[in-house]
Amino acid sequence: MGYKSSGRCRLFGLFVIVAAFFLVGFIIGWFANPPEDEPERRLSDNDRMKLLNEMKAENIRQYLRNFTKLPHLAGTEQNLRLAKQIQKEWKDFGLDSVDLVHYDVLLSYPNETNPNYISIINEQGTEIFKTSLLEPPPAGYENVSNVVPPYSAFSAKGEPEGDLVYVNYGRTEDFFKLEREMNISCTGKIVIARYGKIFRGNKVKNAILAGAKGIILFSDPVDYCAPGVEVYPDGWNLPGGGAQRGNVLNLNGAGDPLTPGYPAKEYTYRYKADDGAGLPKIPVHPIGYNDAKHLLSNMGGQAPPEGWKGGLNISYNIGPGFIETFNTTKVKMHIYTNNKVTRIYNVIGKIRGATEPDRYVILGGHRDSWVFGGIDPTTGAAVVHEVVRSAGKYMKKGWRPRRTIIFASWDAEEFGLLGSTEWAEDNAKILQERAVAYINADSAIEGNYTLRVDCTPSLNTVVYNLTKKIDSPDEGYHGKSLYESWHQKDNWTTYRDAPRISKLGSGSDFEAYFQRLGIASGRARYTKNRKTEKYSNYPVYHSVYETFELVEKFYDPSFKQLLAVAQVRGGLIFELADSALLPFDFNEYAEALRTYADSIFSLANKHKPSLHTFEVSFDSLFSAVKNFTEAAQDFHVRKKHLDMSNPMALRMVNDQMMYLERAFIDPLGLPGRPFYRHIIFAPSSHNKYAGESFPGIYDAMFDIENAKDQSKAWEEVKRQISIAAFTVHAAGMTLTEVV
Amino acid sequence: MGYKSSGRCRLFGLFVIVAAFFLVGFIIGWFANPPEDEPERRLSDNDRMKLLNEMKAENIRQYLRNFTKLPHLAGTEQNLRLAKQIQKEWKDFGLDSVDLVHYDVLLSYPNETNPNYISIINEQGTEIFKTSLLEPPPAGYENVSNVVPPYSAFSAKGEPEGDLVYVNYGRTEDFFKLEREMNISCTGKIVIARYGKIFRGNKVKNAILAGAKGIILFSDPVDYCAPGVEVYPDGWNLPGGGAQRGNVLNLNGAGDPLTPGYPAKEYTYRYKADDGAGLPKIPVHPIGYNDAKHLLSNMGGQAPPEGWKGGLNISYNIGPGFIETFNTTKVKMHIYTNNKVTRIYNVIGKIRGATEPDRYVILGGHRDSWVFGGIDPTTGAAVVHEVVRSAGKYMKKGWRPRRTIIFASWDAEEFGLLGSTEWAEDNAKILQERAVAYINADSAIEGNYTLRVDCTPSLNTVVYNLTKKIDSPDEGYHGKSLYESWHQKDNWTTYRDAPRISKLGSGSDFEAYFQRLGIASGRARYTKNRKTEKYSNYPVYHSVYETFELVEKFYDPSFKQLLAVAQVRGGLIFELADSALLPFDFNEYAEALRTYADSIFSLANKHKPSLHTFEVSFDSLFSAVKNFTEAAQDFHVRKKHLDMSNPMALRMVNDQMMYLERAFIDPLGLPGRPFYRHIIFAPSSHNKYAGESFPGIYDAMFDIENAKDQSKAWEEVKRQISIAAFTVHAAGMTLTEVV
Repeated sequence: MGYKSSGRCRLFGLFVIVAAFFLVGFIIGWFANPPEDEPERRLSDNDRMKLLNEMKAENIRQYLRNFTKLPHLAGTEQNLRLAKQIQKEWKDFGLDSVDLVHYDVLLSYPNETNPNYISIINEQGTEIFKTSLLEPPPAGYENVSNVVPPYSAFSAKGEPEGDLVYVNYGRTEDFFKLEREMNISCTGKIVIARYGKIFRGNKVKNAILAGAKGIILFSDPVDYCAPGVEVYPDGWNLPGGGAQRGNVLNLNGAGDPLTPGYPAKEYTYRYKADDGAGLPKIPVHPIGYNDAKHLLSNMGGQAPPEGWKGGLNISYNIGPGFIETFNTTKVKMHIYTNNKVTRIYNVIGKIRGATEPDRYVILGGHRDSWVFGGIDPTTGAAVVHEVVRSAGKYMKKGWRPRRTIIFASWDAEEFGLLGSTEWAEDNAKILQERAVAYINADSAIEGNYTLRVDCTPSLNTVVYNLTKKIDSPDEGYHGKSLYESWHQKDNWTTYRDAPRISKLGSGSDFEAYFQRLGIASGRARYTKNRKTEKYSNYPVYHSVYETFELVEKFYDPSFKQLLAVAQVRGGLIFELADSALLPFDFNEYAEALRTYADSIFSLANKHKPSLHTFEVSFDSLFSAVKNFTEAAQDFHVRKKHLDMSNPMALRMVNDQMMYLERAFIDPLGLPGRPFYRHIIFAPSSHNKYAGESFPGIYDAMFDIENAKDQSKAWEEVKRQISIAAFTVHAAGMTLTEVV
Repeated sequence: MGYKSSGRCRLFGLFVIVAAFFLVGFIIGWFANPPEDEPERRLSDNDRMKLLNEMKAENIRQYLRNFTKLPHLAGTEQNLRLAKQIQKEWKDFGLDSVDLVHYDVLLSYPNETNPNYISIINEQGTEIFKTSLLEPPPAGYENVSNVVPPYSAFSAKGEPEGDLVYVNYGRTEDFFKLEREMNISCTGKIVIARYGKIFRGNKVKNAILAGAKGIILFSDPVDYCAPGVEVYPDGWNLPGGGAQRGNVLNLNGAGDPLTPGYPAKEYTYRYKADDGAGLPKIPVHPIGYNDAKHLLSNMGGQAPPEGWKGGLNISYNIGPGFIETFNTTKVKMHIYTNNKVTRIYNVIGKIRGATEPDRYVILGGHRDSWVFGGIDPTTGAAVVHEVVRSAGKYMKKGWRPRRTIIFASWDAEEFGLLGSTEWAEDNAKILQERAVAYINADSAIEGNYTLRVDCTPSLNTVVYNLTKKIDSPDEGYHGKSLYESWHQKDNWTTYRDAPRISKLGSGSDFEAYFQRLGIASGRARYTKNRKTEKYSNYPVYHSVYETFELVEKFYDPSFKQLLAVAQVRGGLIFELADSALLPFDFNEYAEALRTYADSIFSLANKHKPSLHTFEVSFDSLFSAVKNFTEAAQDFHVRKKHLDMSNPMALRMVNDQMMYLERAFIDPLGLPGRPFYRHIIFAPSSHNKYAGESFPGIYDAMFDIENAKDQSKAWEEVKRQISIAAFTVHAAGMTLTEVV
């Protein structure tokens, strides 16, 4: 027994030794042949939530406070100083690299010694009224210098005088009404349009097409004051002396007007200003409603059509010109604004990806502001700052994301998305091959009702999943998720039972990344109640009254809504950069395409006899959408069975996902808009802010009514249907099994 | 000692057991965590040589014999039948899949009941001479039906009559000479140009620009007969009754004229014929030298300038019109050729890559021929067939390449590269992301002197290395490599001591892949001695005399030169598809860029005073080339230290290499040529066959002399320099370390 026992012991001992050596062998074997992925440095879902919870409302508050003390107009010393500050702080936070990247772009500033204004002159030419040269500064900011007065950037210079015509919002349909229904010509007139509904540059373009020799833009109280709210500083409405700055370009995605298509570097060829992209040929100037009341109060001509009356106690007569008593007085514009090639600075910070450094996930938002940028853009910049700080903190704990993250603080967004577009042009070749997604970070708040998301359909699901993990900041939603409050407050209604997500148009820095390069993009912010709050933008938009105090007192005193936006923006970035399998959902894209095809087909059906006469069929488009839908479904089924331990197979599937959005890009661009190349989405030709689906078909259909040659016009519709069908079909093909 | 010995034994036994278990553990550990690459199925360098040696001259002979018995004009039943035969044989050889892929493109055929010809008519309109309607068929082919008579595909219909003007080769400089130096206008005339020097479509374009109402193309003996050689069938010279078919389009890469930019599928929108791309507006017709002698023998007007005299015993007077005795006779063209949308078929065969199935290496060449295609294209098609057979044979032995190989038998190349371009358009989105390289396989022989290679500079080194491993087929080079005979026969001379490699232009199916999509491309064939053999093409090019017997009797009786070409084309494909690290060499690209920059700068220096006046500088271009050069050098140094066991790192470096050529693509295209998008190379605007470097700058400089506004013209030169500098710089940036 002793022997037996001893034998067992010895056997056991031998087993232990052998097992130990086996283990050592196994371990050495394992590490001698390591898989190259570095999962141990990636975050679990749980840790990724912790990263979101690392973000703090108080930090966002402090960054907003710090960044909004002075004006940061693009091209100024003060904005360069802020760039350097951000560069330093991002480095301190722990990014791998942070660089200033500059371009020399065309900017536009008022003449410092010869201010812009509008006057009413009598028959002797004497000025009997002049618009104000400045906005009354808000309390506490009286001694701040370098506050640029309200102006329309890139306005032509000039001193046109003539009769006014009131053109409502200056939309395509407003000019149609004037010209076609009311028989009023704007040729040789100065038109006056109220701000709102559409991008101001579209108003200017329409005025030029109508033959106007100048255009005045004014903020009407009905569009820039919420009912029952005081004007700033007692509330958040626009004071009568406030006015909206803004550029009046029609760039269509060209970036710097003098270097369309190419980065505005030292050596880059520059067009002469006359050949520049998108520069208006007539003077433009913005005014507040106090001044507008003076200009409009004696208007003659026809009474305004229904819906054209604003909130001032005046007739809103159309003109041209004043009522008889004043018909010898004219309106004169005095515009001396100068265009000037000026250096701008982007701040570009990077975290090198651990496993796929050549895959880029980008969070970008602008830094430049018209004045203090209290909301626009600094709520966005403060949010990005907190995202960067949180990422840096986790890196110090050993985290390194699978893919590279790029943080960008863009310059000169207000002058036509210049900083972001030039960088996109500079890096187009690399971005095309390597960019996974772009998340935009402009103003993080424009109301305090609920979340607003615009994104490519393939991001819908990740947005929904993420918002389910984020706390709702809304009153009455304690313990509920952001998804829940958002869903309850802004359901997609008839379309589907989920929070509403909108199409991307333009008006912010994602444009070059999405519309030109075809990089999956999205944006998120807090917004107002679109059903009840009918004013445009937020009332003090682009005025001197956009201050830190505006946000702190009225928009988000707890900074919890900004925190929620930070968690959405940051959460998307971390998810996209860190998950082994990219979280795109192409079934959502398929569903969106179906909706868009239905919608453009309905529109076409308003011309049913012509569809028959000219043999216009949408069959190819519907067939392509069907093919895409099946390809997407199959793709996601195959994806479920992917061998996640096979790095090359994983990369291949991720590449298919990354490049899907790229497949919607047509290198030939949309007709007349070479830098809008996405066949599914474009900024509307009638309002840059709005996203249009199947824009090629839409625009061709829009032209039908004015076309002299109906057959030719319908041929163009057919051509555009064919291009859309091809593109959708080809995009679906990229999702089918490789080879 | 016994004990000791026993102890040692036991210790040794234990050690063996432990070691064995360690080994078992190690092995299990290793395989429990396998690297995902599949090297075991790839070929060693040695095996890859065996694959080349698997190819047999005799097989190529048989394929050529088999494929050239009947005409295979694009769009005909006979060519579809050949497509199906190839499909079946490729499947039998062992490819994973072989599909027919069809498109419906615009083709052009003579009217079967109303033949084309040219006549001389007297003042009564009586035809006193008519050109022949057919070529006399070669012996043995007298009873073959469906031989299309010589015609200019896509000629306009019409019966213009008038005076002839002899325009030499119809080159830009020839028309300049006529118009500027000799004061001869071609407006309203019928011009007659000899074939040779440039692509016939350029001659037609020039004639149209000069105002001609018709153009006759003829083969002059000096250009289509080698001295001392008999005409076919006693030698390989063009008989007097032979004529050169060919399309006369100016597509500039558009593919199917009715669907530029998009694949010609069933649902695709088609332009009306009048709006089609590249279709000539005047009648065009080709004739042989027997007929040409009749038309030209009584020409009046000025004597020909130096170099304009051809090989016929006539004056070669310029005209317009005939000498006085005949000045009432006119020339009349009778052209009834029809354009017709016709179905064409590509054969697409695939071998799925083992490790990177989403990386494509393409070997493509056309199958359609004007008549028997004895040289063009069937020497190429036979070579591809043998490459496919060899690959299939090795697959049956267990080989599967790392990357996917695609073999393509294109249709309708002769009608404007239609099959290859439509497939490129159909698959553009996928090819852009996944295509590693395209090797072209048109005619494999055009002479029997030495090898000729045109390729992107980054393929130079792999071409050199490969040809060092292939036996020279040349007489007197037994035991020497193809590289050695090539080097000795066609050294790069003053430029460098290596075999000459030329720029890619166009004129064959690589065009869409290289010039539009930016996929690294190359072509190889056997050629004549360019220093001594001054005739154009090979004499019987595109005539009925291109038969199997022509090749077997005169060009390559042993079929060893065709075998060498097969080994070069196939060897490139196998190397590109199977090597772990792609064999591109960007130091070669850097060197080429430097040469091209020097060359365009020299050209500019012919206008030295203007360079000064208009402040034209090439500094940015030279600086960009310098940056590219350094980036390329650094890249190759880093590549040497790459951890080849890290699959993701390997993929990343390979991706940088794959996308380098893509980085030279400008989505905006070259001015007026949206489908030529490569900034470094384009087909010359004056001769599609020739490759032009920095074509944007070149063309802008070319326009200087004619420009009315010199300042504006030089501005365009500056703009083009800037675009080239940007592109070269940005391409270099893609090679720098990621992030």
